[in-house]
Amino acid sequence: MKSDPLFSRNRHPNETIVKIGSEKIGSNKIALIAGPCSVESEEQLESAALFLKKQGVSVLRGSAFKPRTSPYSFQGLGDEGLRILGAVRKKTGLCINTEVMDVRDVPKAVEVSDMIQVGARNMQNYDLLRELGKIKKPVLLKNGLAATVDEFLNAAEYILQGGNENVVLCLRGIRTFETKTRFTFDPGLIPVLKKETHLPVMVDPSHAAGTRELVGPISKAAIAAGADGLLIEVHPDPQKARSDAEQQLDFVQFEQMISELKPVGKAIGRTL
Amino acid sequence: MKSDPLFSRNRHPNETIVKIGSEKIGSNKIALIAGPCSVESEEQLESAALFLKKQGVSVLRGSAFKPRTSPYSFQGLGDEGLRILGAVRKKTGLCINTEVMDVRDVPKAVEVSDMIQVGARNMQNYDLLRELGKIKKPVLLKNGLAATVDEFLNAAEYILQGGNENVVLCLRGIRTFETKTRFTFDPGLIPVLKKETHLPVMVDPSHAAGTRELVGPISKAAIAAGADGLLIEVHPDPQKARSDAEQQLDFVQFEQMISELKPVGKAIGRTL
Amino acid sequence: MKSDPLFSRNRHPNETIVKIGSEKIGSNKIALIAGPCSVESEEQLESAALFLKKQGVSVLRGSAFKPRTSPYSFQGLGDEGLRILGAVRKKTGLCINTEVMDVRDVPKAVEVSDMIQVGARNMQNYDLLRELGKIKKPVLLKNGLAATVDEFLNAAEYILQGGNENVVLCLRGIRTFETKTRFTFDPGLIPVLKKETHLPVMVDPSHAAGTRELVGPISKAAIAAGADGLLIEVHPDPQKARSDAEQQLDFVQFEQMISELKPVGKAIGRTL
Amino acid sequence: MKSDPLFSRNRHPNETIVKIGSEKIGSNKIALIAGPCSVESEEQLESAALFLKKQGVSVLRGSAFKPRTSPYSFQGLGDEGLRILGAVRKKTGLCINTEVMDVRDVPKAVEVSDMIQVGARNMQNYDLLRELGKIKKPVLLKNGLAATVDEFLNAAEYILQGGNENVVLCLRGIRTFETKTRFTFDPGLIPVLKKETHLPVMVDPSHAAGTRELVGPISKAAIAAGADGLLIEVHPDPQKARSDAEQQLDFVQFEQMISELKPVGKAIGRTL
Repeated sequence: MKSDPLFSRNRHPNETIVKIGSEKIGSNKIALIAGPCSVESEEQLESAALFLKKQGVSVLRGSAFKPRTSPYSFQGLGDEGLRILGAVRKKTGLCINTEVMDVRDVPKAVEVSDMIQVGARNMQNYDLLRELGKIKKPVLLKNGLAATVDEFLNAAEYILQGGNENVVLCLRGIRTFETKTRFTFDPGLIPVLKKETHLPVMVDPSHAAGTRELVGPISKAAIAAGADGLLIEVHPDPQKARSDAEQQLDFVQFEQMISELKPVGKAIGRTL
Repeated sequence: MKSDPLFSRNRHPNETIVKIGSEKIGSNKIALIAGPCSVESEEQLESAALFLKKQGVSVLRGSAFKPRTSPYSFQGLGDEGLRILGAVRKKTGLCINTEVMDVRDVPKAVEVSDMIQVGARNMQNYDLLRELGKIKKPVLLKNGLAATVDEFLNAAEYILQGGNENVVLCLRGIRTFETKTRFTFDPGLIPVLKKETHLPVMVDPSHAAGTRELVGPISKAAIAAGADGLLIEVHPDPQKARSDAEQQLDFVQFEQMISELKPVGKAIGRTL
Repeated sequence: MKSDPLFSRNRHPNETIVKIGSEKIGSNKIALIAGPCSVESEEQLESAALFLKKQGVSVLRGSAFKPRTSPYSFQGLGDEGLRILGAVRKKTGLCINTEVMDVRDVPKAVEVSDMIQVGARNMQNYDLLRELGKIKKPVLLKNGLAATVDEFLNAAEYILQGGNENVVLCLRGIRTFETKTRFTFDPGLIPVLKKETHLPVMVDPSHAAGTRELVGPISKAAIAAGADGLLIEVHPDPQKARSDAEQQLDFVQFEQMISELKPVGKAIGRTL
Repeated sequence: MKSDPLFSRNRHPNETIVKIGSEKIGSNKIALIAGPCSVESEEQLESAALFLKKQGVSVLRGSAFKPRTSPYSFQGLGDEGLRILGAVRKKTGLCINTEVMDVRDVPKAVEVSDMIQVGARNMQNYDLLRELGKIKKPVLLKNGLAATVDEFLNAAEYILQGGNENVVLCLRGIRTFETKTRFTFDPGLIPVLKKETHLPVMVDPSHAAGTRELVGPISKAAIAAGADGLLIEVHPDPQKARSDAEQQLDFVQFEQMISELKPVGKAIGRTL
């Protein structure tokens, strides 16, 4: 390859804006994607959806397929989870972001959602990336735990090269020796990425934090450093969550946090 | 889960021996799996196979599907690579170890090979692991670049839980700040793993090294620390290799290295 | 040790405010310590001092003793550097922050400065820490490149235990595999530290960044996440700097950055 | 600096042999330096010394000054520790290796010992290194927890440049996310170092391991990969040790381990 890759600023000097319903990721408005870690029931998801809609959030996250370290942990509701996502999408009009791990699940997931998420563990699952290059819907690509910036951008290139231009990068921290935060998130990588690529750069403060009290400060740092959006785990009753219970915000915490994020966005000339 | 996981020594105090043709991985004899990084042509693979057979190697490695950081790098010959593996297997009688990344390729790969390899980038590709839990053939599972020992063992558990008991762990180093070796391989993890699990533990010195001159010393260290086998990249003409050119050994280097490894094996009471 | 350490919030629920002249580190006002990496000449230091004074900065940084990876790199002006610091302090009325590496230099440095800095490489130079526990002047302690939060706090404890209560912690990033930023700075550690300790927490964005264009975004992230102050490298002519040339800001860049930081501070209810 | 540094092979193609009494570090014989982590009493040190002497060890290690994470942990016996080292040296005729952290302790330590050790935390304590460049006695320099190979070699250069040619490098592992071993030791760095420098390269398996059962396997790996010697913690009664209790070997364990190391040394053509 002699010419610049598709992700490069040199190929596309202006920001790529990825549209999901009314949300324009990469625009001056800082995007919000929020919702529970896992889809646990229709009641749970609908409750989160209705609350978030009132907060002005238009893209709901929720996983039907959960990548879990142990095979004995809750693995997500699978197809039933997809059905619930579709039902809540229809009922609330919210757009849906959901994770896919298996190439065979892409068509089903595309049917009930508006954005497909690739988690950290699958950042270099190249067959999945190639499959997502063939769809039209936006893809949210998270960095791997040991991935360099170059590897992250090259993973995006697999999707872009397939013809899907709607790729959103999402920083979620890397693994280091420090365990006081769940992962180590470097806000300096936001301007690094935005210099190298025209793709929008979001941040997942929930996974970087690992505990809910750190989600706010990391979110503020991400916005201050120029993130185009945040992906936040919100649950109607985090104590009872079947995954990531420690890091999901409840409704009161989410509302409080957003009210604190707005002035930070304004301070750097953006809206939230 | 209250009881011990399937990988645990508590469940299975004796070593698991994984058989591939005449090779018994986990026995007193240190196993060797060798061959080119990528299948590049029938001539290339056959040449390597015939050489390795003379050296007493009975399991040939070679990838038809290559996980590459950039989509513009050589991605492997794909189905034609599988055909070549099948042809060389038939002609030479060697057993075949080959990597699979896509669940949809598992049946085809199983047909022409005797062992399926899961690379570092797919260590937590759980759908692939589950699929490999359903086959009978042995699986070589490499650790992820940011995977802890616990995550590595839990990845193996996904395969074991599906009913496939033939899992071989393969240490290939982790990513750290040090760049003088390609990855950082800690020989202390061999006894750590062997204490926690009954599964055999091999080492991939080629990827840990990154340059061929380091493959020998790292192989010796691995054997001395108790590795059950080595996975080594050997190419008829490494200079011309389409992937990992820097770390593949040529025939003379391989033969020389094996002659140096034998006394180390003997020193710890094992054969090679 | 059964009781809580001296650094603990349990021992001292309110914030410790460290005073250096009119600067109160740990107060609602975000502190600024700025100046050249190395003292290179009286003209250079005075030029920086006069500019910074006009900008409202009251603590000037500048090293007479430089810890350098290679013995062939510029090692600082030594005693002549201390003399210059003293002269500029007298002339401008600014307070001085300067690094000490050698216990034997502590008395001399204390004479011409108002705050002693301990760099990352000396975070666990316990004899130096003990020596600084005996002085009355404030100490700025940077985290080591591989130091955990617990080790960082314990290093501070060495100083506190000696009787010097004026310790300011300064996060400057850790070493990881990522090289796009010079070090990896995790803003989540600011609230982590502030929960565990009453000591003020500053951030050194210059070393975390490694290149001047990243100093602004990292500074904003630090403030947004709750940092009590920033330590910034500013040089009259960064191109000609004898150390850290890539990451020092010139006067125009510094002034521009401060004007952008002020609204971020305001957004979280603090002044700058 | 245009010419090669003093540590470089280009300046000195043959191995440097560092002599300590009858021990020749860097020769075909693999060197052993062993003894307790801390000097705790004359009885303890003498007991270890007499045992080790019988085992053929001629250099005894033992620290009078201990760098400890917490100021409330045992800090070593200090000057009384040095006295004990001198007494045991005289009584047993063994050579002494002891750690110095404070430049002011160098003269005292030199008086009672034959080799000065610089620990990981002081690898970049440049004033200490410069001071050790002025003495004639050998220096054992351990790598820092976040030090690259280049930084390690440059730290040695500080000593060499001062005129002391007797520097022994000692690998003791780096800090990574993996906690099953105390530090992550990469045997591939032994041949990397030996290609770049003429200085001897030892390994400290005790600190890399963190638990005594791993000291043997890591020692074997180190020897197999070409280490010029081992630095091993041995204590008459490890359970009662005031530091590093988990990783010190007792006499039976040490003797057993040495008997297992000898054939590994022989396998690569060296004696032990």
